[in-house]
Amino acid sequence: MPNLRLALCQIDPWVGDLARNSEEVLRWSKRAAESGVDLIAFPEMVLTGYPVEDLAFRGSFVEGSRAALVDLAAKLQAEGLGDVPVVVGYLGRGEPGSRYAGRPQNCAAVLRGGEVVTRFAKHFLPNYGVFDEYRYFVPGDQLTVLRLHGVDVALAICEDIWQEGGRVAATGQAGAGLLLSLNGSPYERDKDDVRLELVRRRAAEAGCPLVYLNMVGAQDELVFDGETLIVTEDGELLARGPQFAEALLVVDLDLPAANEDGLPDGTVLADGLKLTRVDLGGAPKERPAQPIEPQVSERLDDEAEVYAALVEGTRAYVRKNGARSVLIGLSGGIDSALVAAIAVDAIGAENVYGVSMPSRYSSQHSRDDAAELARRTGLHFRTVSIAPMFDAYMGATELTGLAEENLQSRLRGTLLMAISNQEGQLVLAPGNKSELAVGYSTLYGDSVGAYGPIKDVYKSLVFKLARWRNAAAEARGEVPPIPENTISKPPSAELRPDQKDTDSLPDYDLLDAVLTRYVEGDEGRDAIVAAGFPAEVVDRVVRLVDTAEYKRRQYPPGPKVSPKNFGRDRRLPITNRWRQG
Amino acid sequence: MPNLRLALCQIDPWVGDLARNSEEVLRWSKRAAESGVDLIAFPEMVLTGYPVEDLAFRGSFVEGSRAALVDLAAKLQAEGLGDVPVVVGYLGRGEPGSRYAGRPQNCAAVLRGGEVVTRFAKHFLPNYGVFDEYRYFVPGDQLTVLRLHGVDVALAICEDIWQEGGRVAATGQAGAGLLLSLNGSPYERDKDDVRLELVRRRAAEAGCPLVYLNMVGAQDELVFDGETLIVTEDGELLARGPQFAEALLVVDLDLPAANEDGLPDGTVLADGLKLTRVDLGGAPKERPAQPIEPQVSERLDDEAEVYAALVEGTRAYVRKNGARSVLIGLSGGIDSALVAAIAVDAIGAENVYGVSMPSRYSSQHSRDDAAELARRTGLHFRTVSIAPMFDAYMGATELTGLAEENLQSRLRGTLLMAISNQEGQLVLAPGNKSELAVGYSTLYGDSVGAYGPIKDVYKSLVFKLARWRNAAAEARGEVPPIPENTISKPPSAELRPDQKDTDSLPDYDLLDAVLTRYVEGDEGRDAIVAAGFPAEVVDRVVRLVDTAEYKRRQYPPGPKVSPKNFGRDRRLPITNRWRQG
Repeated sequence: MPNLRLALCQIDPWVGDLARNSEEVLRWSKRAAESGVDLIAFPEMVLTGYPVEDLAFRGSFVEGSRAALVDLAAKLQAEGLGDVPVVVGYLGRGEPGSRYAGRPQNCAAVLRGGEVVTRFAKHFLPNYGVFDEYRYFVPGDQLTVLRLHGVDVALAICEDIWQEGGRVAATGQAGAGLLLSLNGSPYERDKDDVRLELVRRRAAEAGCPLVYLNMVGAQDELVFDGETLIVTEDGELLARGPQFAEALLVVDLDLPAANEDGLPDGTVLADGLKLTRVDLGGAPKERPAQPIEPQVSERLDDEAEVYAALVEGTRAYVRKNGARSVLIGLSGGIDSALVAAIAVDAIGAENVYGVSMPSRYSSQHSRDDAAELARRTGLHFRTVSIAPMFDAYMGATELTGLAEENLQSRLRGTLLMAISNQEGQLVLAPGNKSELAVGYSTLYGDSVGAYGPIKDVYKSLVFKLARWRNAAAEARGEVPPIPENTISKPPSAELRPDQKDTDSLPDYDLLDAVLTRYVEGDEGRDAIVAAGFPAEVVDRVVRLVDTAEYKRRQYPPGPKVSPKNFGRDRRLPITNRWRQG
Repeated sequence: MPNLRLALCQIDPWVGDLARNSEEVLRWSKRAAESGVDLIAFPEMVLTGYPVEDLAFRGSFVEGSRAALVDLAAKLQAEGLGDVPVVVGYLGRGEPGSRYAGRPQNCAAVLRGGEVVTRFAKHFLPNYGVFDEYRYFVPGDQLTVLRLHGVDVALAICEDIWQEGGRVAATGQAGAGLLLSLNGSPYERDKDDVRLELVRRRAAEAGCPLVYLNMVGAQDELVFDGETLIVTEDGELLARGPQFAEALLVVDLDLPAANEDGLPDGTVLADGLKLTRVDLGGAPKERPAQPIEPQVSERLDDEAEVYAALVEGTRAYVRKNGARSVLIGLSGGIDSALVAAIAVDAIGAENVYGVSMPSRYSSQHSRDDAAELARRTGLHFRTVSIAPMFDAYMGATELTGLAEENLQSRLRGTLLMAISNQEGQLVLAPGNKSELAVGYSTLYGDSVGAYGPIKDVYKSLVFKLARWRNAAAEARGEVPPIPENTISKPPSAELRPDQKDTDSLPDYDLLDAVLTRYVEGDEGRDAIVAAGFPAEVVDRVVRLVDTAEYKRRQYPPGPKVSPKNFGRDRRLPITNRWRQG
C-alpha cells in the first residue's frame, strides 16, 4: 500500500481577518513542511473564519476572500512550499456558467505550485441549530478526488458527512483511498461521542479511512473544540487531536493504491455529484522506515471539557474584540466566582478586575467571600458601595418591592459600565442558564456586559464546575480559586433582607430537570407532568420560561454548551401567547 | 361566466394564541356570511399567527394547531356556517406515509360541513431577509384546486407566488379560473409597488385573476400592512384592501367556467406538483343583479405609510405584550418627540407617560420643548432631575470624558426602568437607525426599553416624519404634536457643554446617504467612494458601523421599515475584523 504523510492543521481563524488568517495558513504550512509531508490541510473556511454570516452578502468580502486565496497560493510558492498541495477552506462563488453562477459558496481549494489547482463547494448545507447555510450559500455539485502519490483522496466539507448519501456515498462509488473532510464543527457537550460514531459509520460507508479535521477556538457564541479524528473503514481510531488547543497533527497513512481503471472524470455519482479528478502526480511512496507515530490525545472528562470550552470561549471573545482585560462584579456568590475563575484561567489574573458593590442588604459573608476569592486568585479587587446612589434614587422616586430590588442591580450595572468606560475593561456578565431560562435576573442590572461565560450552563452544573475547578487545583497542589463558603451557602440575590433564590424558584436540581425537558427537549407541559414532575412546578416553570424571552434576547452572548443555547439555537417570538404546552 | 362572491378577511392574528385566533376566524366568518358569500378566506397561518419560529419544533404546539383546526370546523358548523367553505392557514405536519411524514409544515385547509375537507402545505419556502422557513418547514407537493359553483379555484401560500414556476405555472396548466394566495407578507417601504407588479405578472402567468390576501397587524419586528389585492390576468386592479387596518373585503367575481374535460386529479404539473382536485359542488351562479362594488382603497403617501407602520407596530407590540401604557424619556429632542407622537397615536395620550430627566448639561430650551410636547399631546408628564444620582456616582468613582457622558445616559435608563417597574408601563426607546448604525448611543442608557418605534428609521426620515405628522394635524385643524423648536434646532445629546451631534458624526443627510449604500445596499467602501462620497467620511462610517454590531444586537426590537433592519434582516458576527470593504 502506498503511504501518504498528512499534516492536519487544527487552527483558530478569526472571522473577517483575511490577512491574519492567510499569514496563519502560511506559518502552519511552514511548520508542517518541516516534517516532509505530502499534503497539508486546514479547516472549513479557514481563510475567512467561520461563520461569516451576512459578510457572505458583501461582494467586496467575497472578492477579498477569492483574492486572498490566489495571493496565498503565490506566497506558499514564494516561501518554497509550492511542491506540497495545501487544502484550505474559503468563501467563494458559483462558477460562471454554472446553475448558481456568482452566488456565495462555502468552498475549499487545493493550492500548489503557486496556483489554485482546483476548487469545490460544500454539497450539503446545514440549516438547523446554529447553522443558517441555506440563507448564505448555494451547494456544490461535484466530488473532487485528488490523485497524489498513487492514492485517490476524496474531499468533503463538514455537513457533507453529517447527512446520508452525498459525498460519502460518492467516495465509495469512486473507490477513493481516503476521504478528507474539512470542518468547522461547533462544540456541544457530549458531541465528541456523536462525532466519533458518525465518523466511524461514514468511513465504513465510504469504504476507506476518513480524516475529520476540525477547527478550534471560538467565534461569538460558537466554540470549536478541535479533536480532529482519523478513523479507518473498520472503525479503528488512528489519531485524535487535542481538545480546545491549536495543533499540528502529522501522520503516516498506508492507503489503498488508486485504481487506474476507476470511474472516469465526469461520471455522475450519488446525489448527482460529478466526479472531478485532479491528478497531482507523484510516485507512490513506501511507508517510511521511521513513521511518525500518530497522536491520540486523551479526551477530557465531562466537567473538564465544559470548563475548557468556557475558558476558550472567553479567551477568544476577549482577544478577538481587542480587549486586554475584563471586569466582573463580585457578589460573593457562586456564579460570579466561577466566572472570575474562568476569566483568570483564560487571560491571567493580572488582566482580571473584580469589584464588590455592597448595598445595605449585602451580608458580611458575601463581602468576605468576594475578597477571599480575589485573594486566592490574585485578581485586582476593589470595593465601591452603592449606598449613596441608592439613596439618591430613593429620594427622588417612590420605589418599593421588585422596583427597589431591581434598582440595586441596575446601580451595580451602571457602576460596572462606568468603570469599564473609564478604564477599558470588557465587562463579563455572571448569569447562568437556569436564571436566564426563567427570567430570574435584572435587565440592565446583573445582565450588563459584553460576554456571559456561563450563560449556557445550568445552575446545577455551575456547582459541579466550581467543585471540579477547586479539586483540579488541589490535585496540582494549587490553592483552589473558589472559597468553600461560596459553594456551600444557599444561593441568594441579596436584594432584600434574608432573600433566598428558593423564595422565588424551585430547588435548582428540580428546576434544571424540568428546564432540560422543556428547553433542550422541546417537551410539552403534559409530557413533563406525565414523566412524574409536580404539575404546579411544571406550570410555573413553563410560564416563566415563556415570558422571559425578551430578557434572554437582551443577554450578552456566551459559549454554547448545550443543545439549545439561548442565542443562535433557539428563536422564539417575544410576544408569544402559547402557554398551554 | 359563473360568479363567485368571495369574502377576504384581512385580519391580525396573535402568535401562539390558538384560542383567540380561532374565535377571530369564527367572528369574521359570521360577518362575512351575512353577505351571502360563497367562499371565505383568511391569511397564512391565521390560526397560529406568523411567524411562529421555534414554536414549530414544539410537538404539543403543532398538535394544538391541528386540533384547533378540527375544532374550528366543528364550531363553524355549530354556528350555522357549515355550508360555506372557509380557507384558513395553520401549522400542520407532513402526512403519514409521505416523504416528510410528521415534520412541521406551513399549511392551509378548507373547512366545510364541520369537517376539514382538504389540507395542503406551502410549496416554496423563503429563507432570506426576515424569513427562515427552511429551518422550520418542509415543502408541500400538490396543487389543490377547489371546484365551487362551476369555478376552479387554485390555492397557494405567499412565497408560492414570489418564486418562478411552482403553483403559478401549475395553476395555468390546470386551467383554473382563479388563483387564491394566502399571505403573511411583512411591510417594507415601497414594497406595495413591488407586490402589485408581482401580482400582475403572476396573474398573467396563471392565466386567471389572482387574489392576494394579506395579513395585517404586527408581530415583534414585523409589521403586516394588509393591502389585499385582486388583479385580473390582464393586470386590471379589481380590489384593494386598506393598509394597516383589519378589513372584510366582499367582492363578486365573474370567473371562467371550469373545464369538465380538464386535467384529471393526480396529474403531475410544473415543479412536480400533483394536481389535487376537490369538488365542493354547487351549481354555477349568475352575477347578482346588485353586485357588491369592490373596494379599491386609496394608498397612503410615503410618509403617511411609514408613520402608519410605526404606529401599528407600536400598538401591536404593546397590546400583544399585555401592557396598557408606555413610558418615554423626553429630552426635548426630535427622536423622543416623534416616538411620543407615535405612541399617542397608537394607544392614546392617556396611556403615554413622559419623563424629563435633566442633568446639569440640559439646556432650558430642551426642558421647555419637552414640556411643550406634553402640553400639545396631552400625555402624562413629570420631571425628575438626575443631578443627585450623578453626584453620588461622581463622588464614588473617578469618571471623565465618555465615561461621564455615558453615566448620565445610564442614570436616565435606570430611572425609566425604576418607574416602569414601579408603575407598570412598557418603556419605549427613542433611538433612530442612523444612530444605531454608527453606535452613537449608550448601552443601558438611551437604548433602554422594550420596543424602539423608530429604530429602523434613518434620522433624515425622522425629520420628514415629524414635519409630516405636524402638517397632517394642521390639515385636520388640530394642534401639531411636535414643537417647532424641537424640529428646527441642531440635534444634540446634551451630555457635555455645547455638544452637537455633528461634533461626532457627519451631517445626517450625508451620513444617511452613505449608510443607505453600506447597510441597505451591501456596497463596499471602494464602490461608495467611487460613487462620489468623500473617502474620509466613508472610511469613518464603515469603521463605526463595523464595530457597533454588539450595541445593535442589544437594542430593543422595533418595526421593520427598510430592506435591512438591524434585527431579523441583518446578521453579522460581533467579532468581525473585516474593515477593508
